[in-house]
Amino acid sequence: MAETLRIIPLGGLGEVGKNMLLFEYAGRILVVDAGIMFPEFDMLGVDLVLPYYTYLRERAAEVAGIIITHGHEDHIGGLPYLLGDVLPASTPIYGTPLALGLIRAKLSEHPQLNGVVLHSVAAGQTTTVGPFEVEFLAITHSIPDGVGLAIKTPLGTIIHTGDFKFEYTPVRGSGPGFARLGQLGAQGVLALLSDSTGAERAGHTPSESVIAPAFDQIFREAQGRIIVATFASLLSRVQQVIDAAVRHHRVVALAGYSMVKTTEIARELGHLEAPEGVLVDLGEALKLPDNRVAIVTTGSQGQPEAALARMADGTHRQIEVKRGDTIILSSTPIPGNEEGVARLINKLIARGAELIYPPLADVHVSGHASQEELKLMISLTRPKFFVPVHGELRHLHAHARLARELGIPTENILLMEDGAVLELSAQRAKLKKERVPAGDVYVHGSGVGDVGRQVIAERETLGNNGFVLAVVPIRAATGEIAGKPELISRGFVFVRERTDLMERAADAVYRALSEGKVRQRQAIIDRTQGLLTRFFFDETKRKPMVLAVITNCD
Amino acid sequence: MAETLRIIPLGGLGEVGKNMLLFEYAGRILVVDAGIMFPEFDMLGVDLVLPYYTYLRERAAEVAGIIITHGHEDHIGGLPYLLGDVLPASTPIYGTPLALGLIRAKLSEHPQLNGVVLHSVAAGQTTTVGPFEVEFLAITHSIPDGVGLAIKTPLGTIIHTGDFKFEYTPVRGSGPGFARLGQLGAQGVLALLSDSTGAERAGHTPSESVIAPAFDQIFREAQGRIIVATFASLLSRVQQVIDAAVRHHRVVALAGYSMVKTTEIARELGHLEAPEGVLVDLGEALKLPDNRVAIVTTGSQGQPEAALARMADGTHRQIEVKRGDTIILSSTPIPGNEEGVARLINKLIARGAELIYPPLADVHVSGHASQEELKLMISLTRPKFFVPVHGELRHLHAHARLARELGIPTENILLMEDGAVLELSAQRAKLKKERVPAGDVYVHGSGVGDVGRQVIAERETLGNNGFVLAVVPIRAATGEIAGKPELISRGFVFVRERTDLMERAADAVYRALSEGKVRQRQAIIDRTQGLLTRFFFDETKRKPMVLAVITNCD
Repeated sequence: MAETLRIIPLGGLGEVGKNMLLFEYAGRILVVDAGIMFPEFDMLGVDLVLPYYTYLRERAAEVAGIIITHGHEDHIGGLPYLLGDVLPASTPIYGTPLALGLIRAKLSEHPQLNGVVLHSVAAGQTTTVGPFEVEFLAITHSIPDGVGLAIKTPLGTIIHTGDFKFEYTPVRGSGPGFARLGQLGAQGVLALLSDSTGAERAGHTPSESVIAPAFDQIFREAQGRIIVATFASLLSRVQQVIDAAVRHHRVVALAGYSMVKTTEIARELGHLEAPEGVLVDLGEALKLPDNRVAIVTTGSQGQPEAALARMADGTHRQIEVKRGDTIILSSTPIPGNEEGVARLINKLIARGAELIYPPLADVHVSGHASQEELKLMISLTRPKFFVPVHGELRHLHAHARLARELGIPTENILLMEDGAVLELSAQRAKLKKERVPAGDVYVHGSGVGDVGRQVIAERETLGNNGFVLAVVPIRAATGEIAGKPELISRGFVFVRERTDLMERAADAVYRALSEGKVRQRQAIIDRTQGLLTRFFFDETKRKPMVLAVITNCD
Repeated sequence: MAETLRIIPLGGLGEVGKNMLLFEYAGRILVVDAGIMFPEFDMLGVDLVLPYYTYLRERAAEVAGIIITHGHEDHIGGLPYLLGDVLPASTPIYGTPLALGLIRAKLSEHPQLNGVVLHSVAAGQTTTVGPFEVEFLAITHSIPDGVGLAIKTPLGTIIHTGDFKFEYTPVRGSGPGFARLGQLGAQGVLALLSDSTGAERAGHTPSESVIAPAFDQIFREAQGRIIVATFASLLSRVQQVIDAAVRHHRVVALAGYSMVKTTEIARELGHLEAPEGVLVDLGEALKLPDNRVAIVTTGSQGQPEAALARMADGTHRQIEVKRGDTIILSSTPIPGNEEGVARLINKLIARGAELIYPPLADVHVSGHASQEELKLMISLTRPKFFVPVHGELRHLHAHARLARELGIPTENILLMEDGAVLELSAQRAKLKKERVPAGDVYVHGSGVGDVGRQVIAERETLGNNGFVLAVVPIRAATGEIAGKPELISRGFVFVRERTDLMERAADAVYRALSEGKVRQRQAIIDRTQGLLTRFFFDETKRKPMVLAVITNCD
């Protein structure tokens, strides 16, 4: 049997985030990206989500290396969990300098991962990883120094776009390698794996450069301080704030841990440039007249711990938002964050600030390609097979529709979800019936995978209804109830206002257990729990979790 | 002192929903609308939110009547809580036939409210309510039979728009009373209170009639069943499905309790028209060939109990979604519902259906005015004073900006929040320093107001971290610990996988209490709770709620 190439997504197909793709050939595995996902609204208490590493764990010896396409959390955040546990800490990692800088910062918080092996690569270069020859392709995205991949095997070339948009006029650095993509397309591409995030959006994503005129108008008109909230990794946006500040004679200060840290790494690597004296310490900036100051801060997604949220709540150590401040949200809410961002805006307005956010002004553009760019990517690379990647099912399907419109035969469009296995030969692509383990592994605190479906279901009940604990005093000698049970509740009702309710509930238990013949401990517990569950539902139409414990009396 | 008019918003200004405005003149109060708000993401377990009725409760005798502008829940949903409790059940209610039909259906679930007095009114009519002469104004909104109000007092005329858009080409019924608004403006308007919901949106909200061509294309191309999900109250949309079905030779069936009920009321009142034989029972429809069937269903917001969610989960009693089905979400997610709607879409796609939703096609338009319409409203009515109503702070501020652009002096624009008191004379408007009680009253199950800040905070802890209960056996005679405590947890860790953790925690408590000199019950409880809280945080970086109870041993 001839050698085949297998492509297995462990994360990022069917859900957004925790991106991880496996390429298998000749008994070796190439891992592309190792991301996390941020929890969805009903993943209660969960800090972050990992893909299942089961398949990789069983084949750790076969892993030739890990390639990171760019430095966003949904592409690098899983590394601390992957390395040293699932894969040897010495597994080689390939990435561009900025991605590696961010990875290094992340791993430095995990001293046991001191020995990791990071290989710096750059767009245009080619590296051999096991049986794969991987060429790094220049693309543009909302973080600098991102790359796409041309993965070359004896069966043909696979192009993986990574996250991308086609940015003709980047604020800093060079644009995408249109010509090289076309050359690869002309030479023959076996399969294209392309970013589906923006597949529902018509047209062409606007260039980052449209932000400058909007910033100029705001900087021209603002009488007081300007506070710009954006993503710490959106360095082109930070650059634009610096550029606008220079044009309008303001200094720029940074607020928020990740903003300070990312900016530091980016400056060292030349991804951010500020004339001498423009970037100043926050404390220094706040001593200057308000109309000389611009502040770039984290927290544009309403994250409750970020600097902007603390400003909105009046708990930021240094910045007190006041009348005269102009605050720009240079971002749009990530799905799920809409309500939190709206509340943040309202709180800041209530403090007297002028708020500017999309669509009130053109202060944000997406980092992902829209439909016309996705069509261009397919048209440049002319793949035999097409695999939409990075997206919810809806995005993958929308992307597949575009591919069909461009004439790719339906049978050559492979709609995959996490855990699916695609087998490619030079001529054929086949989705195997086989599936590898895939899904969400929850990380909460320091625990990985010890919160699952059952614990989340309990949290949902507790979060929506609270609980009632009945402490039932039983005479050890006879098994009879010795008095009214004590009821302790949390998250159920405001007890001070409903003492009557709790009294009557305790009475009901006492009466039932006094009259009944129940003497066995477990039977007493079951009886109490059943009775209280019914009682509280009848009385309040709520379903608190009810627990009973027995205390002995003599 | 001359008589003044006081306007007091109890709900709807600063938060979206639970709309309720009070107009006070000559010792009498006119209540406009009595709505509920749907809970925000962090109002855990809450079913719905009411405004504070405190102020009204204390002045029940002064209430002359309640006017309802239209039949949406955020305008009528509070009536069952208001009537019979806060205000006499006999308080007269004024509304258009559709609003009253929906109110009647709602109150029929509350038999104690049998005696309510409903007065039917219509656009163009004028009614006297206490000292107020109220003219009902024809407006258009996403439910038929909505009205604005011209409230006439000796001090001048107040126009309250209610929820509105300027619909030039309504699908059914007549359009807004542009001319009458202009006439009132020419005669002099003391104050305009106008809907701010769409104040951040540029341009003019598209007409409902743009939906028809989109529906036509979908109905033409669909090979199987067509399922359209929308709001039960969006009767013009239901009408458009019926119209498209007639054009494309399909029958229409309804799925979902509120869809069936609302449609029934609307048909009786002539707000919905279907040729004989087009509207059929769902069971009947499902016996016909798929390409003869269109189904209109509830659940477009991803509500977990609605018909569409049950179809997505495969638990709908009658409809099994399958390949060939075309499902239209004829709506956009209300803020907060985005993630739920996205998940719904993905589930339905996974079942093989073709999904169509904005922006993939023009299958929804808003029911609220955009900026150009808001400017037209101000320009037609030419008010002396302007009060933006119905919206979060951000919307009220955006609306105020529009009013300033139209030349209304800043001091004549009154930015109010719930609980503020505006005092108007014929010449002056003054925001009083005084505030009336305002805020959110949570309804959960049958409880009104017994869930507050503290209970919600407990739910948040429980929902994110669960709890651990330690049952500590103490010798009654000596106060010494008699054995290892039993630990019971819910929503904390998956216990079967972490027995070691719970064992070590129990050991730690036993050791500490054995060694220590603590003998007093409360001290034992405090010690145990403190120790376990620290232990679990050190071990898991989580903060479950920890409770200890003492059980006696002898």
